[in-house]
Amino acid sequence: MTSQPNDHSVAIQPNENAKSPLFLGVDVGGTGIKIGLVDNVGTTLGFVSIPTEEPKGPDDAMRRVAAACDTLLTSLGYTRTDVARVGLGTPGSQNIAKGLLIEPPNHPHWHHFPIVQSLEEKLGLKVSFANDANAAAFGEFWIGTGERFHSMVLLTLGTGVGSGIIIDDHLVVGHNSFGGECGHIIIDPSPTARRCVWGGGRGHLEAYASASAVAARAKEELLAGASSILAPEAQTVTAKRLYEAASQGDAWSLGLIDETADYLAIGITTIVHTVDPGLVVLGGAMNFGGAKSPVGQRFLQRIRDSFRKLSFEYVADGTTIDFASLGGDAGYLGAAGIARTEYQKSL
Amino acid sequence: MTSQPNDHSVAIQPNENAKSPLFLGVDVGGTGIKIGLVDNVGTTLGFVSIPTEEPKGPDDAMRRVAAACDTLLTSLGYTRTDVARVGLGTPGSQNIAKGLLIEPPNHPHWHHFPIVQSLEEKLGLKVSFANDANAAAFGEFWIGTGERFHSMVLLTLGTGVGSGIIIDDHLVVGHNSFGGECGHIIIDPSPTARRCVWGGGRGHLEAYASASAVAARAKEELLAGASSILAPEAQTVTAKRLYEAASQGDAWSLGLIDETADYLAIGITTIVHTVDPGLVVLGGAMNFGGAKSPVGQRFLQRIRDSFRKLSFEYVADGTTIDFASLGGDAGYLGAAGIARTEYQKSL
Repeated sequence: MTSQPNDHSVAIQPNENAKSPLFLGVDVGGTGIKIGLVDNVGTTLGFVSIPTEEPKGPDDAMRRVAAACDTLLTSLGYTRTDVARVGLGTPGSQNIAKGLLIEPPNHPHWHHFPIVQSLEEKLGLKVSFANDANAAAFGEFWIGTGERFHSMVLLTLGTGVGSGIIIDDHLVVGHNSFGGECGHIIIDPSPTARRCVWGGGRGHLEAYASASAVAARAKEELLAGASSILAPEAQTVTAKRLYEAASQGDAWSLGLIDETADYLAIGITTIVHTVDPGLVVLGGAMNFGGAKSPVGQRFLQRIRDSFRKLSFEYVADGTTIDFASLGGDAGYLGAAGIARTEYQKSL
Repeated sequence: MTSQPNDHSVAIQPNENAKSPLFLGVDVGGTGIKIGLVDNVGTTLGFVSIPTEEPKGPDDAMRRVAAACDTLLTSLGYTRTDVARVGLGTPGSQNIAKGLLIEPPNHPHWHHFPIVQSLEEKLGLKVSFANDANAAAFGEFWIGTGERFHSMVLLTLGTGVGSGIIIDDHLVVGHNSFGGECGHIIIDPSPTARRCVWGGGRGHLEAYASASAVAARAKEELLAGASSILAPEAQTVTAKRLYEAASQGDAWSLGLIDETADYLAIGITTIVHTVDPGLVVLGGAMNFGGAKSPVGQRFLQRIRDSFRKLSFEYVADGTTIDFASLGGDAGYLGAAGIARTEYQKSL
């Protein structure tokens, strides 16, 4: 068993300006678990990443998380008693109120496990529980792109389309812990619509706008003879390669990215007409270079323009659409932020 | 000016068990304004309805509302001082935070008017403001079908598809006062999709599942030669006539109602995957006879079955879909309930 953090460990130097109370944020992914010690204003005092080692199961992972937390705290001159609460984000499906994992599809050895109880016992600290995408949304809300807003929706464009919703400072967890699963809203009801990988639902936003869906759409078009510099690599094309080709001016690649923006705009219109958050944030790895890249700028502007055509003028005027700002840190930061919110409520 | 309530006035006999504090709920519609005196547990102590007389403008209407409130209170042995707060629901568009009507499409003489200030000045009481569909949702949530739930979504099937969302006991007002406009979610993105009456958006739920959309769909099919006992009245067919024909076993009518249920199920799936409320309530005049009618039962069951096919098993298991229970009273009751909630927060 590896109880030591791996070489992704980063101990930021002790911060004498840290604002107590402190919180630990834990973000469980498919391959790695990120752990941050975060102060009361969202500053990361220290960070460590350990491998998930999924096949060893969740109890083993929580033991290693607890050990990594201790190592992180010690390296920064703290102990567990300096931590007010822990936030834990994991992939769904979950029962948030009961602290249970149900059947997370990418964690086959972690099904039906009381993960909150497991981590609470190992750390001797109260643990707040969240869906990983909801935690990321809360991170962006607390100290990221949403920090000046009271409501927002995050869409993370990665292998799937993750999502989280905050309404009037309150995270939408959902009656079945299924709140903010906007990747599974239906944007095309036709019987020939594309299918999701998870669950196989037809016409879901995720089936069009995730990185894997974009790669699948690209592959189909290239195999059908699309004119592009990517034609020779049709079988292996990825969203990243599409971005690179678009950056070189490949017209077909730019068109496919535009089309992806249009699909997203359909979903965003529906989301806005449902909860009217005032802010929609785009996170995840598939940002086509983001705000610093001409392709990313075009992608974002196309989403905004297409949304404006589909929505109502005053709603479009009052809705900001922008990129996320916390990158891969959003998950543990948001988990810490959720712990902070629940700690404050408990006082 | 008519300062007297019209003959819809109903003064329930003085109720010695009324639970104070009391609230006035005001529900402004296109043709009538409903006003109820409601106690702290949602019992209507008295009710009055006055005509809207839209062309006379909102200031005149608020003067008549204030007079009707006084008449109602007097008839029940109360005065304004017995009322803790007033709730006012009106059709959008609105700026809820500022208490303004913006451009309600069916109230052309009421545009850009500070209606909260107007009613507060006339009554000398604090007024809480809401969208009419949101108020109806809050009514069903407080003392109707949703009374045992903490979250719910109401869809009202009438001339349009109205909607309101409550999440964890909190009404979703929206950043642009556009929260819960689920009639305008996109269920069909195709360029030939049906259009909404208001705003003209394509593919919106309202363009398929409102009473007027159902009538339009029916008319088109009948004119195209559908075999039905309604064929002779193709030009004038309504959702009500469709219900009557379906009740007589008309197969085409039943099929069109099934298809309407399927459209609703697409929208409900998207709504549930966004906010996962645990309860979806169907209100409004178009309920095909509701729970007491075989056609209404079939309509509801078809929605449930179709939703189950489109969603995930555990989410469908954990989601109730049912008819509303307050009928046309939901609006003023919900307005009173919103006033009660804001009054409690102000203490």
